[in-house]
Amino acid sequence: MAQETYDKILDVCKRRGIVYPSFEIYGGLGGFIDYGPVGSRIKQNVEDLLRRHYVVGDGCFEVQCPTMSPEEIWVASGHVKGFADLLVECKKCSEGYRADKLLSEVGVEAEGKPAEEVGRLIREKGVACPSCKGTLSEPYTYNLMFGTTVGTGSKRKTAYMRPETAQTTYLAFRRLWEFARRRLAFVVIQIGRSFRNEISPRQGMIRLREFSQAEIQYFLDPENKAAPRFPEVSGRRVKLTDKNGKLWETTIGEAHRQGIIPLEFIAYQLGKAMAVFEDMGVDGGRLQLRQHREDERAFYSSDTWDVEYVSDVFGRIELVGIADRSGYDLGQHMKASREDMQVSLDGRKFLPHVIEVAYGIDRPIYCVLESSLVEDGERSYFRFPKRTAPYLAGVFSLVKKDGIDAKAEEVFALLRDGGLYVFVDHAGSIGKRYARADEIGVPYSITIDYDTIKDGTVTVRERDQKSQSRVAIADLKSRLTC
Amino acid sequence: MAQETYDKILDVCKRRGIVYPSFEIYGGLGGFIDYGPVGSRIKQNVEDLLRRHYVVGDGCFEVQCPTMSPEEIWVASGHVKGFADLLVECKKCSEGYRADKLLSEVGVEAEGKPAEEVGRLIREKGVACPSCKGTLSEPYTYNLMFGTTVGTGSKRKTAYMRPETAQTTYLAFRRLWEFARRRLAFVVIQIGRSFRNEISPRQGMIRLREFSQAEIQYFLDPENKAAPRFPEVSGRRVKLTDKNGKLWETTIGEAHRQGIIPLEFIAYQLGKAMAVFEDMGVDGGRLQLRQHREDERAFYSSDTWDVEYVSDVFGRIELVGIADRSGYDLGQHMKASREDMQVSLDGRKFLPHVIEVAYGIDRPIYCVLESSLVEDGERSYFRFPKRTAPYLAGVFSLVKKDGIDAKAEEVFALLRDGGLYVFVDHAGSIGKRYARADEIGVPYSITIDYDTIKDGTVTVRERDQKSQSRVAIADLKSRLTC
Repeated sequence: MAQETYDKILDVCKRRGIVYPSFEIYGGLGGFIDYGPVGSRIKQNVEDLLRRHYVVGDGCFEVQCPTMSPEEIWVASGHVKGFADLLVECKKCSEGYRADKLLSEVGVEAEGKPAEEVGRLIREKGVACPSCKGTLSEPYTYNLMFGTTVGTGSKRKTAYMRPETAQTTYLAFRRLWEFARRRLAFVVIQIGRSFRNEISPRQGMIRLREFSQAEIQYFLDPENKAAPRFPEVSGRRVKLTDKNGKLWETTIGEAHRQGIIPLEFIAYQLGKAMAVFEDMGVDGGRLQLRQHREDERAFYSSDTWDVEYVSDVFGRIELVGIADRSGYDLGQHMKASREDMQVSLDGRKFLPHVIEVAYGIDRPIYCVLESSLVEDGERSYFRFPKRTAPYLAGVFSLVKKDGIDAKAEEVFALLRDGGLYVFVDHAGSIGKRYARADEIGVPYSITIDYDTIKDGTVTVRERDQKSQSRVAIADLKSRLTC
Repeated sequence: MAQETYDKILDVCKRRGIVYPSFEIYGGLGGFIDYGPVGSRIKQNVEDLLRRHYVVGDGCFEVQCPTMSPEEIWVASGHVKGFADLLVECKKCSEGYRADKLLSEVGVEAEGKPAEEVGRLIREKGVACPSCKGTLSEPYTYNLMFGTTVGTGSKRKTAYMRPETAQTTYLAFRRLWEFARRRLAFVVIQIGRSFRNEISPRQGMIRLREFSQAEIQYFLDPENKAAPRFPEVSGRRVKLTDKNGKLWETTIGEAHRQGIIPLEFIAYQLGKAMAVFEDMGVDGGRLQLRQHREDERAFYSSDTWDVEYVSDVFGRIELVGIADRSGYDLGQHMKASREDMQVSLDGRKFLPHVIEVAYGIDRPIYCVLESSLVEDGERSYFRFPKRTAPYLAGVFSLVKKDGIDAKAEEVFALLRDGGLYVFVDHAGSIGKRYARADEIGVPYSITIDYDTIKDGTVTVRERDQKSQSRVAIADLKSRLTC
């Protein structure tokens, strides 16, 4: 069942230019994907939707920093030392594996345990190489950052591709503080690529070595982490798992009142993120909240939550992580760079606290695909909502003669010049063209026929209602965008 | 003069969140910049403008590929062997330099000459280390790609950060050809980051180690490189330098008819790119065309042209390169991957030709800044056109009492919820707030006063006309976006 769903999604994705593996002609390389013509439109719509919610709606500042950055940053942030997995290699075929993954397959939880203990567990349980049954090496620490070198000669510096955007946002804190005219709270979003050298990524869009993120940093006064807009989301019903693994079904407001989500600000952001995902077209009924366990949470974080999606194919997928990072990161960069990151406000001098809302982009897009998939007899297609759909409408000529096709081009040009993403298609029967448009989730099909030439109206077919109506060309743009 | 202009631009850029050097608190690293809150808005507007012209307007397919990619690709494309500069290092202080740059400073043209000859020229001319006067090493070849390693153990692969987007677009040619329903011509754009390990970048936004590009690939039938829309641009007057260094002042149409720009398709794209730059806010009077010399052009290209901007600060800057790349790249990937890149069309089987239009993004943004700078007595500010301006309008309360500030928030929220990028500002005198908005090139200032509460109208001040008029709140959105 799960495999079947996935195969259908992959089939449409590859055939119709949504996503496909990168470097296919060279045999591919795990953890890298291309967004095709349709997928790029969806990705942009998802990013624009995040901008509408956070930049336009909430007044976030947006920044764009380099993805390559010098070693000092990642020493200060703790990534050079700590951003690592335990790896074992097969002594026979040299294939590498994450040690905790192999142990979890035999029912042993090893995440976060020291290398010696993990090595002992592997020997005890007789875990061998899954592909050739060879003996495995002792586990060793393997940093997940991609390293490179900038410059040449004695001036060359070790650098890393960033494993997250957050640190690069923090570096310019003083400039952002000035830009915010020395007031808290202010908010900064960065949308861009990050990189992790995953050992053997095998999950399509879910675990990528190069991926996109939208990470939002709220710089707050530690004495004021209130969320005045909390009432907007507090009534939302949620399923949640707390740090002790206990399951709850309640509202976000109730979860906060009962102390399950102690911080109002985090509770608000969780509710807001769920609304954002639904807006994209992710099935809200499959969203759940999960609090990180004490032993899983970074030591400087007082509380961390994920919004997860329950996938038919991949099980639980983390879509956004919301963490109170305290003043830790600014403090680390202050120590390492000797630049004062403290602010003076109302007679106090302090390090602002950061609450981070860290969205993946690729995973939510996958969840939109899975949530939008409709299996209708022989056909599979995507029912994307208008705001995520790659094109708003297709324009079709009923026949390719008598000026009908020219009129279709004219209607297409009118909508296009009005700034709408539309396409025109003259090839094949109308039924086939509807089907092609359905497959990539286009909400409207516009047909130009003999009446169009007589009275200037067109047939608008709505994918979801499967209803058809006649609309005057002059009213078309407002009808499609209403 | 030039330095003074640059200092003014830099000053506003740093103070007002446009662009600033990355990693400043760690002492910086040449060739990397951050786009701040205002700069990110401008960058997005520039990218959206390119999308409007090429994706919406011309039906380009947009793709997004990884920036990290395995070695095979760059072997096939020729970059592993040929994408290199000749480097000399100081034997005393170890500083590295591009050999041809040092020679050009003493009036010797060495670009493209072999290492032995360049070494001989350096000795003959007595060129020493510019910083410590030490003796220089023999020149050696230095590849400009950043290398890294993907994976681990025997499965690890050498990879490079892409030095251009183009090759990553070509790889998926077969999928794109299917997506285009096996017809030529079709067009593919990719907007994203690329990377070059420049030896010692010292020119702000002009020579970056990590930069953004918008590269457009026209896949054409070699027997049909016509440009039916050429008449739209053929009347444009241009200054151009041909491959022999001869200067011409003529129209694009005339230059094509005289055989100076032999290919109609390239002539069309040059004219179109100039119009796109003017649309962004680049001073059209400073744009020139330059044809590559025979010895500078890639051997597989029959013709290559740049649109250049004549900067007060940096001299001639290449903004876009337009090259007929023939079937070379598809052919190279076909040989290396053994995937057939030929197409069958009208009874012929052939490799499509590619004409590439390769835009930088960061350099045009710099040129928009320089072109928009207004020096008005003591003040310097930017007169960005509406479509590039970071915000469309600022909303200001005349006083912070009597409900005026609340009304301003209400007008702000109305425009914001209408999807417009606007801001609200209550701090300081109205004059100061106008000046702050002017500085970052905001085209409209909206003032809320006592009359607003009485009759629902506001004062709209247009930056360029310095005229003021009363506009009803209900008409505001259409007035600002007209």
